[in-house]
Amino acid sequence: MASLKSIYGSADPEKAGLNSNFNVDYVIHYQFPQTDTTEAEARFVQLIESLATVGLATEVRRGDKSSLLVFVKIASEDFLKSQIYRYRVQDWLYGVRTNAPSKDLAAYFEAEPVTDAERLRLVYLLITKPKNEGGAGVTPKVGQWKNVASVFPLHNHAFNRDWIKRWSTKYVLDANDLNEIRDKFGEKIAFYFAFLQSYFTFLLFPACFGFGAWLILGQFSWFYAIVNSLWCVVFFEYWKKKEADLAVEWGVRGVSKIQLPRPQFQWEREAQDPVTGEVVKVYSPFKRLQRQLLQVPFAVACLAALGSLIATCFSIEIFISEVYNGPFKQYLVFLPTVLLTVLMPTLSTILTDLAERLTAFENYDTEDAHKAAFVQKIFVLNFITSYTPIFLTAFVYVPFGRVLVPYLDIWRATAQRFTKEGKVETVDFKINPDRLTKQIIYFTVTAQIVNFLLEVVVPYAKRKAFRAVKEVQTEILSKNEDALPKDPEEEAAFLARVRNEAELDEYDVTVDYREMVVQFGYLSLFSVIFPLTACSFLVNNWIEARSDAMKIAIGSKRPIPWRADSIGPWLTPLGFLAWLGSLTSAALVFLFSGNGHGPDGHPSNIKLWGLLLSILLAEHLYLVVQQVVRYVINKMDSPGLQKERAERFQMRKHLLQETVGAEVAETGPGFKGGEKITREALEEEARQQSIKGHGTPEETFWQRQRGAAETIQIGRKMISEVSSSNKTTTARE
Amino acid sequence: MASLKSIYGSADPEKAGLNSNFNVDYVIHYQFPQTDTTEAEARFVQLIESLATVGLATEVRRGDKSSLLVFVKIASEDFLKSQIYRYRVQDWLYGVRTNAPSKDLAAYFEAEPVTDAERLRLVYLLITKPKNEGGAGVTPKVGQWKNVASVFPLHNHAFNRDWIKRWSTKYVLDANDLNEIRDKFGEKIAFYFAFLQSYFTFLLFPACFGFGAWLILGQFSWFYAIVNSLWCVVFFEYWKKKEADLAVEWGVRGVSKIQLPRPQFQWEREAQDPVTGEVVKVYSPFKRLQRQLLQVPFAVACLAALGSLIATCFSIEIFISEVYNGPFKQYLVFLPTVLLTVLMPTLSTILTDLAERLTAFENYDTEDAHKAAFVQKIFVLNFITSYTPIFLTAFVYVPFGRVLVPYLDIWRATAQRFTKEGKVETVDFKINPDRLTKQIIYFTVTAQIVNFLLEVVVPYAKRKAFRAVKEVQTEILSKNEDALPKDPEEEAAFLARVRNEAELDEYDVTVDYREMVVQFGYLSLFSVIFPLTACSFLVNNWIEARSDAMKIAIGSKRPIPWRADSIGPWLTPLGFLAWLGSLTSAALVFLFSGNGHGPDGHPSNIKLWGLLLSILLAEHLYLVVQQVVRYVINKMDSPGLQKERAERFQMRKHLLQETVGAEVAETGPGFKGGEKITREALEEEARQQSIKGHGTPEETFWQRQRGAAETIQIGRKMISEVSSSNKTTTARE
Repeated sequence: MASLKSIYGSADPEKAGLNSNFNVDYVIHYQFPQTDTTEAEARFVQLIESLATVGLATEVRRGDKSSLLVFVKIASEDFLKSQIYRYRVQDWLYGVRTNAPSKDLAAYFEAEPVTDAERLRLVYLLITKPKNEGGAGVTPKVGQWKNVASVFPLHNHAFNRDWIKRWSTKYVLDANDLNEIRDKFGEKIAFYFAFLQSYFTFLLFPACFGFGAWLILGQFSWFYAIVNSLWCVVFFEYWKKKEADLAVEWGVRGVSKIQLPRPQFQWEREAQDPVTGEVVKVYSPFKRLQRQLLQVPFAVACLAALGSLIATCFSIEIFISEVYNGPFKQYLVFLPTVLLTVLMPTLSTILTDLAERLTAFENYDTEDAHKAAFVQKIFVLNFITSYTPIFLTAFVYVPFGRVLVPYLDIWRATAQRFTKEGKVETVDFKINPDRLTKQIIYFTVTAQIVNFLLEVVVPYAKRKAFRAVKEVQTEILSKNEDALPKDPEEEAAFLARVRNEAELDEYDVTVDYREMVVQFGYLSLFSVIFPLTACSFLVNNWIEARSDAMKIAIGSKRPIPWRADSIGPWLTPLGFLAWLGSLTSAALVFLFSGNGHGPDGHPSNIKLWGLLLSILLAEHLYLVVQQVVRYVINKMDSPGLQKERAERFQMRKHLLQETVGAEVAETGPGFKGGEKITREALEEEARQQSIKGHGTPEETFWQRQRGAAETIQIGRKMISEVSSSNKTTTARE
Repeated sequence: MASLKSIYGSADPEKAGLNSNFNVDYVIHYQFPQTDTTEAEARFVQLIESLATVGLATEVRRGDKSSLLVFVKIASEDFLKSQIYRYRVQDWLYGVRTNAPSKDLAAYFEAEPVTDAERLRLVYLLITKPKNEGGAGVTPKVGQWKNVASVFPLHNHAFNRDWIKRWSTKYVLDANDLNEIRDKFGEKIAFYFAFLQSYFTFLLFPACFGFGAWLILGQFSWFYAIVNSLWCVVFFEYWKKKEADLAVEWGVRGVSKIQLPRPQFQWEREAQDPVTGEVVKVYSPFKRLQRQLLQVPFAVACLAALGSLIATCFSIEIFISEVYNGPFKQYLVFLPTVLLTVLMPTLSTILTDLAERLTAFENYDTEDAHKAAFVQKIFVLNFITSYTPIFLTAFVYVPFGRVLVPYLDIWRATAQRFTKEGKVETVDFKINPDRLTKQIIYFTVTAQIVNFLLEVVVPYAKRKAFRAVKEVQTEILSKNEDALPKDPEEEAAFLARVRNEAELDEYDVTVDYREMVVQFGYLSLFSVIFPLTACSFLVNNWIEARSDAMKIAIGSKRPIPWRADSIGPWLTPLGFLAWLGSLTSAALVFLFSGNGHGPDGHPSNIKLWGLLLSILLAEHLYLVVQQVVRYVINKMDSPGLQKERAERFQMRKHLLQETVGAEVAETGPGFKGGEKITREALEEEARQQSIKGHGTPEETFWQRQRGAAETIQIGRKMISEVSSSNKTTTARE
């Protein structure tokens, strides 16, 4: 928490410029080359003019040596409200809001005040939307605006300080905490924390149960596997419901329908939107589908590249640690790790880049669709890098070890080249039964800690170092006679702080989601190997929530508060991992449960049909349980969805009463439908008809009995006739 | 088509009373015991009074010997319209209609006229709804109204005649045909025909492909299996979309939310409906869930009872046809068939009755939920009775035949008791390789024809016979001196016709759905055995549609035109069968494809792991393909859903303009937001602020640069300063 203290603890907030944002909505970080200033000036003028045209006030201050900070705020509160009103109307048109905005403005904004997030989102849209849609069209780093390094809102440090302090002293985040996040950082980030919190709470069960299982059942227990799979299903189905509920509560359900257009989208033709009637740009979905099919070779390529790298390193490691017995063994064991550490990030970067290009090539029209497609590919990459080593150990090394190890002779041959004697000392190969357990402990405990350090400590250190360099630079600069003029005293601290914030990275919630989903995967796929997995994750996730909060509050620029109505593209991987877990758990239990150490490396000792049968059974058990859980959870009260339906119903009722009048809505216009139709009225009508009647067969038919009384009379006669005729017949007989 | 001719062809329609319904909406068939007429009379009086109170006009006529026909029509057209208006408002409140009913009544009913189905549905509700909800509370056959045998609308024979004629001369039903059905018989039945039509059209492909496969690939082709599975997925996913589209087109989407309460429902407590705010009766869903769990033992019991019956008959059949070689063999082979024919319907009836009781015990609050739960159980029953014989042959008889046949000795022992010599001649058992093919041909061709005969010819014959008996009775009666008085001449034909209709069965669409779903199951599960299956079904279904139409038009009472927004509970079985098809096809191909005749009865010759692997692969291929097909189909334009969204959007827009005014809706109230915010306006505002300003740091910050012009000027200065300082530095160095 050193980082926290350094910002919020020791320094005087006033001095650090943390107490006020000077009403600034956004800061535009304008970087220009130090040489060619003419173009930079021209662009700058364009920038300020564009902003002014859409009603944004600007102030410019010096940034660092070759950049300016343009402070932007919305010029008039009235204009802001008119914008917000317009967006809320749009929400209502798309069915996101259940209540139409009312005409009485003061009361309306009193009842539904503007949140920080709403204000910031709208101002951001005003800055970045294309000019023909009423925005300033400033798209950072792209085309004309390549000098605009970033457009970012300023942190509310008073809130952040409070937030971090509160969270670090409580165990469980409640609805209020999430609402605060939502009001400050938007629903997209609030959804991440909501997910994290739900996941954390749900982890309590497998943590306790896993601890018990570890004590009593040991590893590879089929009972643990079943309970764990069941838990995965329940969590997944619960979250789907919770997500919808939250979306309603936050008033964003269906917001994913209102899409942010992607500026890079290339359209083929214009067409009328069948829903709104507006002209929209269209790209043939079938062409896109063809391009999407490239995902299949992409996935294969990823598997081939990453898989062969991992497999190679894996085999080297096995050779060195379990076959090789020559000199430098204690150093050589690190060789595969070094190889992985060097090559894996390189390969990952290349493939991520490829994924990015592929996604761009698929040419989505909205940011959400683009992001979702990208996430899909990223998930494939992460799936391979995260789980392949364990798959290799469990399903290749252990069962096929003895068969495959002779092929490791290529490493022996390689090694022989490097030794003088031309001979490499080896020991007899034996399957190392603890390898799998060790590996899983590494991934679920060690790696989590390493990850935490990478995520929190490294950026902090980097920032410290970076800042120190800057300070030295500034010192050198100030020693120069032509130092840049000083900031006005009352702004100096604030400006210094803004310059720091401008240097921070942008926060990407995708990274954090990815981490959690991959973690969930370890739990679902492999925790039967090491039942304490969930305990480790429980601890980790408590810290994770706080460190993510710190990352947002201190380690990143304040994020643009986007809206979202779910965790979006991460739901599918979650469901996929839960399902796959049923398969791998069954396979692991079948392979390893006998002696706890699995087969001895001879594949012939495995009953393949038994393995397949356990997988088949486990999977179908999973699918059946999923249906049941889904059914039960859907039966449970869902406060959010219920609220939404009730609101819609009331809205309709209200509108109906407003348009056609309360009484009419009940009975229909022009009728005295409310009054009981009496027998008299009916008879009167019949009489009327008989007067008008022209004697058609129909009229004759209906006039035989005038009114109910006659019908009754005649009917009774008919009944008694039958009875009497019966009696006659009986008497005669 | 004898039946058609006898009603519509030869006889003069005028004479047959087919041309007019005398404006009758409903006929209530009131049966009374011939002995105790006092109570019958009292009940009759109650009936007519109840009907009169809710605005229904009545006429009574003689039925048969001990029954009356009460003709009912709504007393006033205005009252009808007020009722319809009220129901349409309800539809709108529940979101079924996208447009709120308008105030201008004449124009409204001009634009959206009342269909036959709507009128009949409402009158039926008026007759049957409880008194406290404004109905007459007449529930046929239940409690107080046990004398009311049925409440039914009269056929529109002019339409029916036309309908049957048209359909019997065209190959494909189009949207108009379905719309007509919908207008006359309601959406529930229209959905059945829509499904049948879609299924028929889709069958063209497997019929052609199957014919080709039969010629070229033969039986048990893996290629056929894959194509067939793919077809099942496509059809299933297509229908799901089509169903939603149709619901929108017919204006019934979401109508399943408006539930018809089930009178037999027993409630625990009253609660407020969270959506509408009305008081509703509630039964704890968790108690119901407990009761629903009884379905599991029920399914097991069905499987045990039906399964053992089938297995027993099956084993007897095998013994007699393939082992036994003694006397009377040619007669004895029919023994199992006789046993099945006698015992199966008995057992089925018992189990159906049990299913009915179980469903009632589950205590659903709405008719739809009750029906759905019942359908679920019926499906289990039908699944067992329809497919068990083939499962037994394919997966027990063929692979395990040689192992199991020795156990058939109990039949030999049984047989020995009946023979004098105490010895039974037998032959050596050999697996009969054609048994499976013969069996599937029986189920997909012979049984379909038998079924058609049972469905159409038998009821017709029954009716003919029944009517003949009646005529004789009447003749005898008319010979009696105290014969009942004759009908008025102008009504005689009509009344005779109504008396006939009163005797007809009620049409139950469930039976027809069941038939189609079971048929789809044969195609999905077993058609790899006999690729011509779809050809047989194609022919059968062309006839099926016409014979179902005839069944409705001539063979049944006119059905109550209920609404529906889908094929309801039948969708799940359909999906289940498509999925299961991928498993069985894979298994069949694996077991039988080698020599075309499967294993030789020795289970040891089967590679179990190979079987399991093919099943596993096939299933996952199926699941993947399903996701892809779903994705692609969802990408395709869906005219219905699009139309619905567009209507909702327009409705909202319209309402908004109505409530807050067109201009306000665009810009927000009280703003001149439409006008461009100019730089001048902005500067003016800044000036205003500086006048009001109290010199807070914020104000000072924003007043350093007044307006964009100053910002530009200062920014340019800063940029050029950097450039010049650079030059200075460079110069100095």
